[in-house]
Amino acid sequence: MSALITLLTDFGTADSYVAEVKGALLSLAPGATLVDVTHDIPPGDVVAASYVLGRVWRAFPAGSVHLAVVDPGVGTRRRALAVEAAGYRLVAPDNGLLSEVFAAAHAHVVSLPAPASASRTFHGRDVFAPAAARLARGEALEQLGSPVSDLVHLPPRRLRTEGTEVVGHVIYVDRFGTLVTDIPEFEAGPGAELCVGRHVVPLHGTFGDVAAGSPVAYAGSGGTLEIAVRDGRAASALDVGRGAEVRVKGGRGG
Amino acid sequence: MSALITLLTDFGTADSYVAEVKGALLSLAPGATLVDVTHDIPPGDVVAASYVLGRVWRAFPAGSVHLAVVDPGVGTRRRALAVEAAGYRLVAPDNGLLSEVFAAAHAHVVSLPAPASASRTFHGRDVFAPAAARLARGEALEQLGSPVSDLVHLPPRRLRTEGTEVVGHVIYVDRFGTLVTDIPEFEAGPGAELCVGRHVVPLHGTFGDVAAGSPVAYAGSGGTLEIAVRDGRAASALDVGRGAEVRVKGGRGG
Amino acid sequence: MSALITLLTDFGTADSYVAEVKGALLSLAPGATLVDVTHDIPPGDVVAASYVLGRVWRAFPAGSVHLAVVDPGVGTRRRALAVEAAGYRLVAPDNGLLSEVFAAAHAHVVSLPAPASASRTFHGRDVFAPAAARLARGEALEQLGSPVSDLVHLPPRRLRTEGTEVVGHVIYVDRFGTLVTDIPEFEAGPGAELCVGRHVVPLHGTFGDVAAGSPVAYAGSGGTLEIAVRDGRAASALDVGRGAEVRVKGGRGG
Repeated sequence: MSALITLLTDFGTADSYVAEVKGALLSLAPGATLVDVTHDIPPGDVVAASYVLGRVWRAFPAGSVHLAVVDPGVGTRRRALAVEAAGYRLVAPDNGLLSEVFAAAHAHVVSLPAPASASRTFHGRDVFAPAAARLARGEALEQLGSPVSDLVHLPPRRLRTEGTEVVGHVIYVDRFGTLVTDIPEFEAGPGAELCVGRHVVPLHGTFGDVAAGSPVAYAGSGGTLEIAVRDGRAASALDVGRGAEVRVKGGRGG
Repeated sequence: MSALITLLTDFGTADSYVAEVKGALLSLAPGATLVDVTHDIPPGDVVAASYVLGRVWRAFPAGSVHLAVVDPGVGTRRRALAVEAAGYRLVAPDNGLLSEVFAAAHAHVVSLPAPASASRTFHGRDVFAPAAARLARGEALEQLGSPVSDLVHLPPRRLRTEGTEVVGHVIYVDRFGTLVTDIPEFEAGPGAELCVGRHVVPLHGTFGDVAAGSPVAYAGSGGTLEIAVRDGRAASALDVGRGAEVRVKGGRGG
Repeated sequence: MSALITLLTDFGTADSYVAEVKGALLSLAPGATLVDVTHDIPPGDVVAASYVLGRVWRAFPAGSVHLAVVDPGVGTRRRALAVEAAGYRLVAPDNGLLSEVFAAAHAHVVSLPAPASASRTFHGRDVFAPAAARLARGEALEQLGSPVSDLVHLPPRRLRTEGTEVVGHVIYVDRFGTLVTDIPEFEAGPGAELCVGRHVVPLHGTFGDVAAGSPVAYAGSGGTLEIAVRDGRAASALDVGRGAEVRVKGGRGG
């Protein structure tokens, strides 16, 4: 079985950058299987990248190597990291991109030195890809750099309770305009409603339970509540985006 | 030779969804070769998905497994199918997406049960991918579900003849703005013209046969007549989209 | 180790075309590893394709086969080429797409005959993919066609010197709006400035060296000077696109 390396970047797919990274990976780890997670993270959007990575890193077979490069601080003094957690290996800049990984599992972390030959603007190719390839070839984490512990984390999500309401936020908007919240699905009991923007949205089992064009909340495939409009786009129909406050009324805690 | 699984969805490539599906596939069928057909089917556009699938399913080596998920009815009572046809295996929702496959070859079809643990909104990951992986590992179709026969079909294309004219429709518009019709290429004889919208378009061997900016009809690479504008976009230049009527005058039947 | 074939096209990823090419490749070269360089070259933009190919072709392991199809002249009498250069193999139309390859290395070139069964509009599938598959399977270049030498080249880039200034051009704009020039990085000495449009842009080590929103020039990852706006898009902020003149003042030659 060949090593599996996934790629998650904001490089887009129109330029040469992803291919240059893949060329580096396949030159250093011949025969590795490469899987694109996405290259369409909005440029520099570490929050979106962290969310997507949080959903996928344990979906692949144990032992997989995840190369995640959304790196607006490339060329500054931000560190480059290699990580081992829950049987997976990851390489990424130290800018919060690994927050979901760190929140979910104990991690061993090393700081990667930048080779003298590395460009100042393309560490995906010159720093992260070589490290991912070495891990894919079986090198131990400790061979790649020195242990570090004071890591950058994104501001943690914080649910709060106000009386009988649970208050969370929209943390991601997907391609279908679906609003993903940070409210665990178990917070919603029978008859619960979500309030978002100026809208009250009923909770159902899935979006198929309401009429076309109607908003609906349900337990999403990522384990938290989501808000959609059947056959429509909730983000535009409700005029709500990332960061919007979401209140669960009549939930399990109520 | 490792098993080959192709993926055709409307998930887009910006979110975690495709990667979650691939993680499920590679966890259950380690070493499988994954090939993206496309993830950019317009959301819920079963007609476009059916057309694209119809063009590609037999382009891959026999034995390939095609995972096709454009599934606006996920979470409703629409069935999930696994299919064997012409030496290929396919998994897809029972919503017409397989119409071109059913039209082209005799098919054995089973209905897939949804595991109790499946999410209500992401059967691509929880129902279809596991079935595709099992087929890729060599399990027999019959092991996956119970035979069914009353399948959902898209409305069939129907060419008609009016006097000396053959009348069909635009069934697909591609990235180049090219209008793909459902009129078999053999319907066009020498000197034939196509009428679409308010335009009369001459028939030639290829778009290289007319001047830049000129419309032209020709036998397309999918076996039917297509209408393009050389170095331009026929869809916008002729203001014509999917569903538009197309008439062949002076064709072979004329 | 299986053969590696990369794909670079303007087919986009929404239609069936890329999958039809991959089906042809995997049917003729079973087990080949396929890597997408990009399918998002602007339709017919041979100049952009040539630039991207120039950056990636030697990034992959020696022996790789590069299939590059940006082919506005498909169906006309333009030739189809197979090439061996620097230990790599390439197949592409004879329209300048290989200019960067020809400029970088001595090349053996043959002209590919179009099979009688080839469509007039989809040589990517019917001419180029079969040739790439044969090369991936180990066939010699000479078996694929007859040697040719009078090849189409894009107009060469020409730097010029005016007094103490080096004058070049923007040759590519990437997904981040970064302006890539054809001016080798060594032309810029300490304290050098770039003039582009009506803007004077300071030269630094990287975009991290200026404040957010500020323009900056630096030695890019492709070996030439680039102009970016930190946390912004230089192309729109400076209102400059491909072809714009760029002057280096105070460079090494100054």
